[in-house]
Amino acid sequence: MKMEELKQKILKEGMAKDSDILVVNSFLNQQVDTKLMENIGKEFAAYFKDKGVTKILTAESSGIAPALMTAANLGVNCIFARKQKSLTTDDNSYVSTVYSFTKQEMKNLIVEKSFLNEDDKILIIDDFLANGQASKAMIALCNQAGADVVGIGIVIEKSFQEGRKILEEMGYDVYSLARISKLEEGKIEFLD
Amino acid sequence: MKMEELKQKILKEGMAKDSDILVVNSFLNQQVDTKLMENIGKEFAAYFKDKGVTKILTAESSGIAPALMTAANLGVNCIFARKQKSLTTDDNSYVSTVYSFTKQEMKNLIVEKSFLNEDDKILIIDDFLANGQASKAMIALCNQAGADVVGIGIVIEKSFQEGRKILEEMGYDVYSLARISKLEEGKIEFLD
Repeated sequence: MKMEELKQKILKEGMAKDSDILVVNSFLNQQVDTKLMENIGKEFAAYFKDKGVTKILTAESSGIAPALMTAANLGVNCIFARKQKSLTTDDNSYVSTVYSFTKQEMKNLIVEKSFLNEDDKILIIDDFLANGQASKAMIALCNQAGADVVGIGIVIEKSFQEGRKILEEMGYDVYSLARISKLEEGKIEFLD
Repeated sequence: MKMEELKQKILKEGMAKDSDILVVNSFLNQQVDTKLMENIGKEFAAYFKDKGVTKILTAESSGIAPALMTAANLGVNCIFARKQKSLTTDDNSYVSTVYSFTKQEMKNLIVEKSFLNEDDKILIIDDFLANGQASKAMIALCNQAGADVVGIGIVIEKSFQEGRKILEEMGYDVYSLARISKLEEGKIEFLD
């Protein structure tokens, strides 16, 4: 199995706070383990290399590092959907909505229309898959643009939540590098 | 000059909205030009390679791509300061405050204490330097940890604002890849 390195990192440095929340700030969500992230990028690129990917789409902020490393290995650009408007946001943007569980609030996902078009074959990359809402919001952005979603790459999947099932029922190929079957305070179990 | 590629990109795709705001969403602030970002990482790494850098520090979100590519070239990890607390934020964190001009609001910058310590030699990387407030806030986080800031790498400097002067007067080595002397609607001028 390719990403044994990631699993070992999760076991060593991840902290299960309860049955829902896994803290991996030391290598993914605040500090980035550069070497691990390079290997994550290589692994996603190897899996999706024959899909004709033209661009990677992720959401700020924790998706950016794995998305960029995957983009570098596939030789394509990446886009990070913004969650907040700024003075530089183009009014001509696609917008979808997602509930952030870890921030306990609704967020918009915003991508300028000029960055997604109907010729694009989009690979969605994200740090976590739980209930699938973030991926669904990114799929919605691609649908608005008429772009094809050719796959979804996830660093850590909470397999005890319904995200994978929802996305697979929509017809998407979901490739998760680590699949967690159970969290409880101080304990992390993998699916395989 | 090394980063002629960046300047040409700014001239071709950047949009000066007024005398303050430069929109570079097509390659830096929303879409990331992966190849350009790899070269930016190489250039920062080459300039700061003898400084004994142990970690890169940036702030989410637009700093992450150049910071990660620099980290990859220096063989170190990087940290992105968070601007918003979440359920995974450790209470044991350093916090400083910065005014975001493009978002027109005060933001905290938050880094877990365990990721910065007094043995660290920190290279700060950011997408823009304007009035220097974001860099000062990151310096403050390092000061709280007793970590050394060994340099500041900036992708695009608005040289007509006071950021560089403030940071140089504090004694820091500021290396900016593109220095803009003047913006007006539809027009961008470089310092050299």
